[in-house]
Amino acid sequence: MKLLRVGTSGAERPALLDGDGTLRDLSGIVTDIDGELLADASALARIRAAAQAGELPALAADGLRTGPPLARIGKVVCIGLNYHDHAAETGAEAPKEPVVFFKAADTVVGPNDTVLVPRRSRKTDWEVELAVVIGRTARYLEDDEDPLSYVAGYAISHDVSEREFQIERGGTWDKGKNCETFNPLGPWLVTADEVPDPQALSLRLWVNGELKQNGSTADQIFPVAEVVRYVSQFMTLYPGDVINTGTPAGVAMGQPEPKPYLRAGDVVELEVEGLGRQRQDLKDA
Amino acid sequence: MKLLRVGTSGAERPALLDGDGTLRDLSGIVTDIDGELLADASALARIRAAAQAGELPALAADGLRTGPPLARIGKVVCIGLNYHDHAAETGAEAPKEPVVFFKAADTVVGPNDTVLVPRRSRKTDWEVELAVVIGRTARYLEDDEDPLSYVAGYAISHDVSEREFQIERGGTWDKGKNCETFNPLGPWLVTADEVPDPQALSLRLWVNGELKQNGSTADQIFPVAEVVRYVSQFMTLYPGDVINTGTPAGVAMGQPEPKPYLRAGDVVELEVEGLGRQRQDLKDA
Repeated sequence: MKLLRVGTSGAERPALLDGDGTLRDLSGIVTDIDGELLADASALARIRAAAQAGELPALAADGLRTGPPLARIGKVVCIGLNYHDHAAETGAEAPKEPVVFFKAADTVVGPNDTVLVPRRSRKTDWEVELAVVIGRTARYLEDDEDPLSYVAGYAISHDVSEREFQIERGGTWDKGKNCETFNPLGPWLVTADEVPDPQALSLRLWVNGELKQNGSTADQIFPVAEVVRYVSQFMTLYPGDVINTGTPAGVAMGQPEPKPYLRAGDVVELEVEGLGRQRQDLKDA
Repeated sequence: MKLLRVGTSGAERPALLDGDGTLRDLSGIVTDIDGELLADASALARIRAAAQAGELPALAADGLRTGPPLARIGKVVCIGLNYHDHAAETGAEAPKEPVVFFKAADTVVGPNDTVLVPRRSRKTDWEVELAVVIGRTARYLEDDEDPLSYVAGYAISHDVSEREFQIERGGTWDKGKNCETFNPLGPWLVTADEVPDPQALSLRLWVNGELKQNGSTADQIFPVAEVVRYVSQFMTLYPGDVINTGTPAGVAMGQPEPKPYLRAGDVVELEVEGLGRQRQDLKDA
């Protein structure tokens, strides 16, 4: 299923995009799309049954904003340098174990919302990523457990990054990852049953119509299953948590001088195979 | 005012500790203590008036668990190496600007709840800190604005840290800061009007009765006001966000070998002047 949330920011209603591309209202059967829903197999089954029975009212999509496909996000765990080609372009060695950093959930916006270039930013950069949404509490997963069974679904995530704040201002990366609007998510949360192999998805990103990133999750150093298992050894993952699993090559930082960092007026578009498409206008904060 | 939340985990009720040390039930006038309440001056005034008029029913404190004094915490921003003596003991230079990292809000537990030593941990360490709770949205604060006017109150925070996960496992510090139960908070949220000078508070921490940390916020490299202003340049601070402002010298990592890292069975007690006291039993995860 393709689950989404539509409406003005803070007042989104839950919806489903059906096989015909028709938007269906879910607000009659669930209150919202959040960790609690994703952990509730019977609620998900209820949505599926109502969709199959044709019982969900259509919603007019015209002019309707798409919000992030998940409400009340717990934490956003991010994996750094997780593609061979991206690690190479930044001059870093492929890490021996996953590099973990955080985005605050309050940085998450809708897939087509405005992205703000922070004040005094000179190095705002793009990163198309596969986001993993957790559906079951994952804690110290053992080798014989299937980490993917803890995944409720997948979405496109834009891990917007300010490189000077991230790397040149002392301390850890979080300072350049948590500016306002720095994590467009969606349009859809695609349930895991519709993504049989998360390691076979193409990811692409364009700036002002020019293709900048063109990778595949096949190039991930630590695949999704290994990331979920690994992270669960250090922290407990709860339903409604999100993992941004890293970006392929092609970011501004990896390009020759003058590096083409983002400015107000730029347009970024992102696509992950089967997960839809995002489009953001950049403006000054 | 000393605001707190009492009851079983997830079902705490809001309360106030009055000047006589009597616990008063606030559940008749506010639903909970969270960012929304802290942003609402009239709700805080209502509590204050009811307390002064003697209208708040007493609560029997016996056997009642104290939860974290804040519900629905947004993000927990942490400042690293923020005391001259602590930076020196870790062998680090005093940072030129604040070092920022994150704890997930789901690591927050009550002040006397059990702290779990993570599986495969060999270097679980303590850190007593002054926590700042945000009461108004702070975004790009200018030099002529008073950052302390964005602070709703203060609390004791225990920034439990696994040093091997933090420093030796590749990547940023977050991996060693986000284990389950790693952020006891409270007992009280003391409103800012009762903390006239946040740079004049003693902080102490004991392990098994032995004094390990004995510092003062006067030793902070970046005082609270500067931290709030600085962080607001990189991310927006919302009501209900928490900033852990760093720890003074005396952590296990700073001591000679064999360093006395925490183990199941240890007891840690923490005190910050005017903000109460915490006590945690350590157990294995």
